[in-house]
Amino acid sequence: MASVRIREAKEGDCGHILRLIRELAEYEKLSDQVKISEEALRADGFGEKPFYHCLVAELLPALGEPQGQGIGSQIIKKVAQVALNKGCSQFRLAVLDWNKSAMDLYKALGAQDLTETEGWHSFRFEGEVMRELAGK
Amino acid sequence: MASVRIREAKEGDCGHILRLIRELAEYEKLSDQVKISEEALRADGFGEKPFYHCLVAELLPALGEPQGQGIGSQIIKKVAQVALNKGCSQFRLAVLDWNKSAMDLYKALGAQDLTETEGWHSFRFEGEVMRELAGK
Repeated sequence: MASVRIREAKEGDCGHILRLIRELAEYEKLSDQVKISEEALRADGFGEKPFYHCLVAELLPALGEPQGQGIGSQIIKKVAQVALNKGCSQFRLAVLDWNKSAMDLYKALGAQDLTETEGWHSFRFEGEVMRELAGK
Repeated sequence: MASVRIREAKEGDCGHILRLIRELAEYEKLSDQVKISEEALRADGFGEKPFYHCLVAELLPALGEPQGQGIGSQIIKKVAQVALNKGCSQFRLAVLDWNKSAMDLYKALGAQDLTETEGWHSFRFEGEVMRELAGK
């Protein structure tokens, strides 16, 4: 297993974060939905009232060992720690139904698929629809 | 249509908000999942770094007219205004698949069912699972 350090993101990470967002969206076949810029990531995450918090995994690959093993689990464990420290009673992840490796990991770590077991659907309002609703 | 005033919630509304949370959970057949207290609602929503923001609808019923018509639409329109003012590009709602009247309303207002169209599932980590992941 590669040696991994998980830490809070800094403003200077935003370029790398945007690259990872784009790579994930490409994997999810949803690249057209990525409209955010590095400037917006900086403003939204590192202002006075941040809209998001972010953890990053720094990889220190060990010679002769495979990279990338177990990073997902380690980040989720860190999220659990952060959530408990903030007083959260739960945290949620969104995953596409064909992304079986992600679903299997979350289930193996003890998560419940609320869409499957309780029937929760996620509805999105965006763009022109939002502006019409707001009368703008 | 009843006359409705939509405004930001105040700390003194938390008793009523908890009652509405419980009534909604009863309708959703999920009453066992409501563990929050009025004290926690006050602390989480009205401290220095609030965990949630809340709008409330005040009803001023007009004589001879039915109450409760159109409140959902009016709250969603207000949410769209607040979201745009805060710089959000979208907002999302979670709804149970058998709650056809809510789904029909959201679709009529222009929302997209992301679970249906893109396959998004919602996964939840909670309680003992979180503590085990966090090593606590």
